[in-house]
Amino acid sequence: MPTTRTQVAIIGAGPSGLLLGALLARKGVDAVIIEQRSADYVLGRIRAGVLEQVTVDLLDEAGVSERLHAEGLPHDGVNLSFGSEMHRIDLKALTNKHVVVYGQTEVTRDLMDARAAAGLTTVYEAQDVAVHGFDGSQPSVTYTVNGEAHTLQCDFIAGCDGYHGVCRASVPADAVQTHEKVYPFGWLGVLADVPPVAHELIYAHSERGFALCSMRSETRSRYYVQCSLDDQASRWSDDDFWNELKRRLPADVAANLVTGPSIEKSIAPLRSFVAEPMRFGRLFLAGDAAHIVPPTGAKGLNLAAGDVGLLARALEEHYRGSNRGIDTYSQRCLQRVWKAERFSWWFTSLMHHFPETGSFGQRMQQAELAYLVSSDAARTVVAENYVGLPLVM
Amino acid sequence: MPTTRTQVAIIGAGPSGLLLGALLARKGVDAVIIEQRSADYVLGRIRAGVLEQVTVDLLDEAGVSERLHAEGLPHDGVNLSFGSEMHRIDLKALTNKHVVVYGQTEVTRDLMDARAAAGLTTVYEAQDVAVHGFDGSQPSVTYTVNGEAHTLQCDFIAGCDGYHGVCRASVPADAVQTHEKVYPFGWLGVLADVPPVAHELIYAHSERGFALCSMRSETRSRYYVQCSLDDQASRWSDDDFWNELKRRLPADVAANLVTGPSIEKSIAPLRSFVAEPMRFGRLFLAGDAAHIVPPTGAKGLNLAAGDVGLLARALEEHYRGSNRGIDTYSQRCLQRVWKAERFSWWFTSLMHHFPETGSFGQRMQQAELAYLVSSDAARTVVAENYVGLPLVM
Repeated sequence: MPTTRTQVAIIGAGPSGLLLGALLARKGVDAVIIEQRSADYVLGRIRAGVLEQVTVDLLDEAGVSERLHAEGLPHDGVNLSFGSEMHRIDLKALTNKHVVVYGQTEVTRDLMDARAAAGLTTVYEAQDVAVHGFDGSQPSVTYTVNGEAHTLQCDFIAGCDGYHGVCRASVPADAVQTHEKVYPFGWLGVLADVPPVAHELIYAHSERGFALCSMRSETRSRYYVQCSLDDQASRWSDDDFWNELKRRLPADVAANLVTGPSIEKSIAPLRSFVAEPMRFGRLFLAGDAAHIVPPTGAKGLNLAAGDVGLLARALEEHYRGSNRGIDTYSQRCLQRVWKAERFSWWFTSLMHHFPETGSFGQRMQQAELAYLVSSDAARTVVAENYVGLPLVM
Repeated sequence: MPTTRTQVAIIGAGPSGLLLGALLARKGVDAVIIEQRSADYVLGRIRAGVLEQVTVDLLDEAGVSERLHAEGLPHDGVNLSFGSEMHRIDLKALTNKHVVVYGQTEVTRDLMDARAAAGLTTVYEAQDVAVHGFDGSQPSVTYTVNGEAHTLQCDFIAGCDGYHGVCRASVPADAVQTHEKVYPFGWLGVLADVPPVAHELIYAHSERGFALCSMRSETRSRYYVQCSLDDQASRWSDDDFWNELKRRLPADVAANLVTGPSIEKSIAPLRSFVAEPMRFGRLFLAGDAAHIVPPTGAKGLNLAAGDVGLLARALEEHYRGSNRGIDTYSQRCLQRVWKAERFSWWFTSLMHHFPETGSFGQRMQQAELAYLVSSDAARTVVAENYVGLPLVM
């Protein structure tokens, strides 16, 4: 039974785990990543693609941002449509910051390529992954590859293994407090190789439900429509999808929509979730393992990047002799997480159709938009949250 | 059967009707006010006492603000407490405006006194008030006083008779659309001749529920605690009330609370309500007759003042030959009404205890406060709504 040793065992080779590995490598901290899936599977997951400056800065620090800077699309604004009206939030003017549109898949690929080039260890297709001893001084990870059992001894375990991962599930139930809200609808998403309908994202509220026009590049678009939770992507033909999307957009936008065959079509539920704390002895949770936001506002990857940015710094400090960073990790992450949860919940509540709130609730949505349009302060609130609140290192 | 004639028949001698009468008199428009209750009854109603600058400006225009300026307390800030923390919103610094604390009862008294001094007609204790013909060109009001039936012919009827009044109830049901939200709690309020615990208002969120520390003067205080809807004021001794209030305030605030015998103690439900439109031919609704806000943020009187300010201007314009004002009255009122409804709903949702939202909802409240404390833009949003959004004349 092979036994190896590292300083930090990272569970999960999604963007959180890969970014943590890259940041730790830059800081001279040794790490091994254990992933249950294959690299191709990880790359096949379609996720958000709006990066905050904080995330770009961390990718810069990790040395994996060359292609991001070459191919990413800086966006200085974002659009909200309500029925036939469309209003632009001028992110740049209101905050002097912007966001960069660059698919999560591309971030993952860049991190994977850099990790392979640097000869750093990632174990893919690890079975029966289990974490041990994180409440003591000698944690370890056990797993099986090709039928052979392995043990990885380590100083710390980083749980970057997502909402369904083993790390949070390995914490005693009475040590973790969870908070959750499940929304009564999902998003039906379509990826297509068509030019985006607009240069910037459009978040659309309509009586038929929410829609989102986003893009991965100048030639690849990602569109969503709010759907019921019991719907199935297979019930939707491409034509059905494009027609429904058009009905939810202002007429002049819909008229410019370029349609084409879908590359991918899937339904995702919307959930708000936070587990507290984010540290359990020598186990740290990061990203989706600790918190989920609904996708409205694209905070998921950005929150995960913030977490691993703080964690990398904290671990570096530990090896330099200070535990201040690891002792305050959970609290500092959660301060930022809760604010992003609030924004994602608010933005979801504003833009979706909630039949159960009645006409008063619908008028509150309209009043909020009317107020946004009239108030610099209210637009600044949206903008400063959209571009991302500061990460206090 | 005595028949008299006026230009504008105002139904209701609360602050809306009285202010409308005063503004119309200044503009040379003749008006008679019909009120079902006695003057003493109207003066006995205890209501909010936070005036926006827009309201003060209208009272100035009506020539009834001398005592307000002498005795009103300008407030440059307002405080939010969450558990043991207290945070001040600096209204003056954020908006360059303030609010004036001056009881609605005092506003009503000043308007009544000025009306009596000017010899303008107010009919009190009118029974069987009914409005007629507002869909045609010759509206009228009928009522009975001391058993004698009266008819008041007029050009226009102003419905300033509150939520339960006859004016909105006289509109055909299919001509009016209503939007409503009833909150699952009430406010237990106590009026006492004790100096206020703080120079500025304190809106307090606690696990036991909301509380509000407000005042009418340097020697008269008005306090509230959130209570259940099936509670009764008579169940609460003064000591019970003061003890419960203290438990909901930061300890250092509670330690300074001066208690004393209550002058008045009552429970009010919290409701959001809007009727659309606010004009039906020659009948105009204003104030509570058209919309109710929960008292959090004290928007009720201020919205009513805005309505009658617009209505007085519109009627003056009519007699000068333009119907632009009366034709746009409903739309212009409702634009402002819906924004104030939004703020009152938001502020109520932030500060009260809602057991049914679970731990996620409670964390959203905490995150909102943490965000407010950290963001100039977010505090400006609160401040600009609290001091009042502009009235577009």
